[in-house]
Amino acid sequence: MKALVFEGPGRTSWRDAPDPDVKDATDTIVRVDTVTICGTDLHIIKGDVPEVTPGTIVGHEAVGEVMEVGAEVRTVRPGDRVLISCISPCGRCRFCRENHYGQCQGGGGWVLGHLIDGTQAEYVRVPFAGLSLHPLTSAVDSADAVLLADILPTAYEVGVLNGQVRPGDTVVIVGAGPIGLASIAAARLYTPERIIVVDLAESRLTAARATGADATVLSAEDPERLVADLTGGLGADVAVEAVGLPETFDLCTRMVRPGGRVANIGVHGKPATLHLENLWIKDVTITTGLVDDTVLPAN
Amino acid sequence: MKALVFEGPGRTSWRDAPDPDVKDATDTIVRVDTVTICGTDLHIIKGDVPEVTPGTIVGHEAVGEVMEVGAEVRTVRPGDRVLISCISPCGRCRFCRENHYGQCQGGGGWVLGHLIDGTQAEYVRVPFAGLSLHPLTSAVDSADAVLLADILPTAYEVGVLNGQVRPGDTVVIVGAGPIGLASIAAARLYTPERIIVVDLAESRLTAARATGADATVLSAEDPERLVADLTGGLGADVAVEAVGLPETFDLCTRMVRPGGRVANIGVHGKPATLHLENLWIKDVTITTGLVDDTVLPAN
Amino acid sequence: MKALVFEGPGRTSWRDAPDPDVKDATDTIVRVDTVTICGTDLHIIKGDVPEVTPGTIVGHEAVGEVMEVGAEVRTVRPGDRVLISCISPCGRCRFCRENHYGQCQGGGGWVLGHLIDGTQAEYVRVPFAGLSLHPLTSAVDSADAVLLADILPTAYEVGVLNGQVRPGDTVVIVGAGPIGLASIAAARLYTPERIIVVDLAESRLTAARATGADATVLSAEDPERLVADLTGGLGADVAVEAVGLPETFDLCTRMVRPGGRVANIGVHGKPATLHLENLWIKDVTITTGLVDDTVLPAN
Amino acid sequence: MKALVFEGPGRTSWRDAPDPDVKDATDTIVRVDTVTICGTDLHIIKGDVPEVTPGTIVGHEAVGEVMEVGAEVRTVRPGDRVLISCISPCGRCRFCRENHYGQCQGGGGWVLGHLIDGTQAEYVRVPFAGLSLHPLTSAVDSADAVLLADILPTAYEVGVLNGQVRPGDTVVIVGAGPIGLASIAAARLYTPERIIVVDLAESRLTAARATGADATVLSAEDPERLVADLTGGLGADVAVEAVGLPETFDLCTRMVRPGGRVANIGVHGKPATLHLENLWIKDVTITTGLVDDTVLPAN
Repeated sequence: MKALVFEGPGRTSWRDAPDPDVKDATDTIVRVDTVTICGTDLHIIKGDVPEVTPGTIVGHEAVGEVMEVGAEVRTVRPGDRVLISCISPCGRCRFCRENHYGQCQGGGGWVLGHLIDGTQAEYVRVPFAGLSLHPLTSAVDSADAVLLADILPTAYEVGVLNGQVRPGDTVVIVGAGPIGLASIAAARLYTPERIIVVDLAESRLTAARATGADATVLSAEDPERLVADLTGGLGADVAVEAVGLPETFDLCTRMVRPGGRVANIGVHGKPATLHLENLWIKDVTITTGLVDDTVLPAN
Repeated sequence: MKALVFEGPGRTSWRDAPDPDVKDATDTIVRVDTVTICGTDLHIIKGDVPEVTPGTIVGHEAVGEVMEVGAEVRTVRPGDRVLISCISPCGRCRFCRENHYGQCQGGGGWVLGHLIDGTQAEYVRVPFAGLSLHPLTSAVDSADAVLLADILPTAYEVGVLNGQVRPGDTVVIVGAGPIGLASIAAARLYTPERIIVVDLAESRLTAARATGADATVLSAEDPERLVADLTGGLGADVAVEAVGLPETFDLCTRMVRPGGRVANIGVHGKPATLHLENLWIKDVTITTGLVDDTVLPAN
Repeated sequence: MKALVFEGPGRTSWRDAPDPDVKDATDTIVRVDTVTICGTDLHIIKGDVPEVTPGTIVGHEAVGEVMEVGAEVRTVRPGDRVLISCISPCGRCRFCRENHYGQCQGGGGWVLGHLIDGTQAEYVRVPFAGLSLHPLTSAVDSADAVLLADILPTAYEVGVLNGQVRPGDTVVIVGAGPIGLASIAAARLYTPERIIVVDLAESRLTAARATGADATVLSAEDPERLVADLTGGLGADVAVEAVGLPETFDLCTRMVRPGGRVANIGVHGKPATLHLENLWIKDVTITTGLVDDTVLPAN
Repeated sequence: MKALVFEGPGRTSWRDAPDPDVKDATDTIVRVDTVTICGTDLHIIKGDVPEVTPGTIVGHEAVGEVMEVGAEVRTVRPGDRVLISCISPCGRCRFCRENHYGQCQGGGGWVLGHLIDGTQAEYVRVPFAGLSLHPLTSAVDSADAVLLADILPTAYEVGVLNGQVRPGDTVVIVGAGPIGLASIAAARLYTPERIIVVDLAESRLTAARATGADATVLSAEDPERLVADLTGGLGADVAVEAVGLPETFDLCTRMVRPGGRVANIGVHGKPATLHLENLWIKDVTITTGLVDDTVLPAN
């Protein structure tokens, strides 16, 4: 089959690769119909995620058709159209038992396109199929469904739930890429008073406004001041970091109010400076996280 | 009267200062009988807390006797022996209404020895007496009670509650000064499986063991490895930073398990490095905080 | 002045009553411009709330103009147009310190039209004005603002927050009077999947649909079955009781799913039967509550 | 083999029954070495749990040795000494994914001695062995371990966690049978100020004191008054119902303070009266629940 292979920092190739086989009784082989490219894939290709070894097929989001199932797989069968979650949980380890599928210590978690071959190929082997594949009805379009593999759950779980967005809040989202835009949609579920979006590019801010942002501001045009102005000088209740750079993380910690929350979603390749000389007294909560995809329904 | 006055970074003097007067109807004048010196006072004297202007009397913890009360003070009367909370909340602003007394925006909060004259003097003016003074029965010794002004509530609220210590947890406390020792006592209320204490000085580790630490380790003797060994390689559920240095904060973020909590109590004078290139994926929660003293009972 | 006076179970009179005076330094006298009638007033008049003694002026919701303030009142002044909260919290007792203003044990809480004369009169004495009066800007209409005195906060705090409504939930609200309708509006802040409303009267169900109910059903037309049908047989995530009768409370406990929440708002005059022989195994949470009005902003 | 069989309300027999076989690939056959009798077994035998059909072998707690495993069982092997959890979760349904194993809708949950044959026999078939069997080291005594199958987790999860016991609380436990005694031990993990235990029998109160109760009182000697006296008239923060009768449930609702929690553990055979005419205004939370056994560690 053909596949997109990570060949080392900065290099990928679209080349022939062996078809995957069922190795484990909980494996399923899926023919990939629809994929998307995650910002994390770009980080991988840049070399920011050193656990990914050269030769790995990238990709952890897809919709496709089940071709073959291992002996223990009961929740799907060949012919089923399925969403492939970016997280493949064992379901039995301590973290899976606590619903932290992304932190699975039983051989699963985020493995696709990370520790094993991923979805940007004609076929993919998906382990722990009982919890990682979700049958789709014909009512759902593949291009819509693939957003549920990672992007929307990440925005919801790691941005909105970790950030504890509440009705009436001021939420500032830094970064209006796919995750930032998904965070707008996810935050609106809690009816914040306003969502402010910050980005480098005017075109992205236009997309943010179309997705429901109440106010937008270019990074160069003093977002800290806009947030202060809109909140009587207090700062945002929640700041969502959806970029993955030291500067944008620092900006979040400067825009958040005393008692507020900074929810980091961005994949970082280097350390940030944490201004504890200002923050120690401010009752701030900072969270990091990998998606668990527990927001996806049970089969 | 005599008072200990901050004269600028690195300088204090024990000198004459004017006796305080009731300025506001909610003020109380207290004759100070017992004080203690907070680590924060040391940070102030070093110059780490720039809001403290030269000429300010330091100190925010005391037990004393009420000498005079403003017209609106009803909860204490002259002659009462009282604990002075380090936090003087207005009781009406948004943050006080949300129980975040330490973040008061109505002219109160942590003001003693910070924005107004403090307790290391013969007399002190305490604002918002209705919520900041706590009458003491004769059964309580002053030297015991003064620990409730700041040290024990800080360890409990900012260390243990923010860190969400739970039965069965492994808790690591970095720093075995008064706040670190108080954190041992506070953490034990939740029956963690073990409390590990890290410090530079063997004498402090001895005190930690006497206070209930289950294991202790010198900073130089690889605390990260001890924590890993005791937790099957996973890391601590909760790491409490009770020093206020970039190195100790960083150590906490390295010792905490995926999904764990880092509760910063330390007063920091400079920024720390936050290794987001490792932490972004680990589901870690980092909290900072000033005590609210809401753990003290109502009058 | 003229006032509506409770004269004993089933009897009220609109008669002359003495003008109120400032009794306490935290009192304010307000000239009442706009009032509303609470379902609780009807319970009081029926005799369901025995603490209300004959001779008491009823009413605990109003908008008006401040005429006179006690010596300690600083947050409002004569001439201010204000919302009168139904809860007058002392701000200092244990429950006020924990944000449970409705349970105030310092002489406040729900006192208006309950333990002291209320708002259905030309003038009213409001105690603890610092926390119980909220200045209104001219942008807010009195008829809108008066809904914030009790109805909307009750629906939000006692119905939606106690019931822990979450995105995607099925919420069933029993009773489509003012509190039930306000519960629809309040629940929508959390974007539930659907809100089902049950009532005896078709006219009220029409109002419920206009307020945002997704489905409505008459009490006589098997609401339990409708809820089961819409939830795959599982039951509602949250059932809100907004009537105050044994039958409607029991209906809520039958419509809720395993692991679901029953939030009682209704004022009850007699006991209900709790079918623990069915419920003991179902992981159900039942809450009761009086509004705290902590959702109202600080002054 | 020999087994204890429920023959209908009030009747059991110790008789021959067929040896169990592996029916499903996730089944395990365990030779039972140690069992205990749950209060729920007594309710079953009385006829309080109508889902249990005559002919069912009773019992849902045991320690034993694995004899045979289904094709998909990987976490235990023949010869292992194991604890049998009273809950056999499928691990894949909505409730299992939310950690509510006791509410499993995938064919598991509490099935042993309830919907399928139980443990009071020489051999037992245990379904979903991956999550329901826990290997034991030789350091653990069988008579100790068997308490972890149901009694201690029930007291901890359904009594103490549902009741939200916190440091400083007054906890009253009604019923000093095995569950009530286990609730004392479980509550102490949170260092309440005092634990008060109520029972009909002086001998049980003696056991309660030996287990750590701070105060005990016979049902006939006005427990409501003792609780009021010890709490300044306020009531208990948490009341744990560990009997399963209308009278004891009602007593709990009378002893709890405004804002307090009633955690029902008791298995009830008939309805209770809920005095909403008193409770509607009191901000009380009442919980029911079946154990999930999620407190048991992962394999």
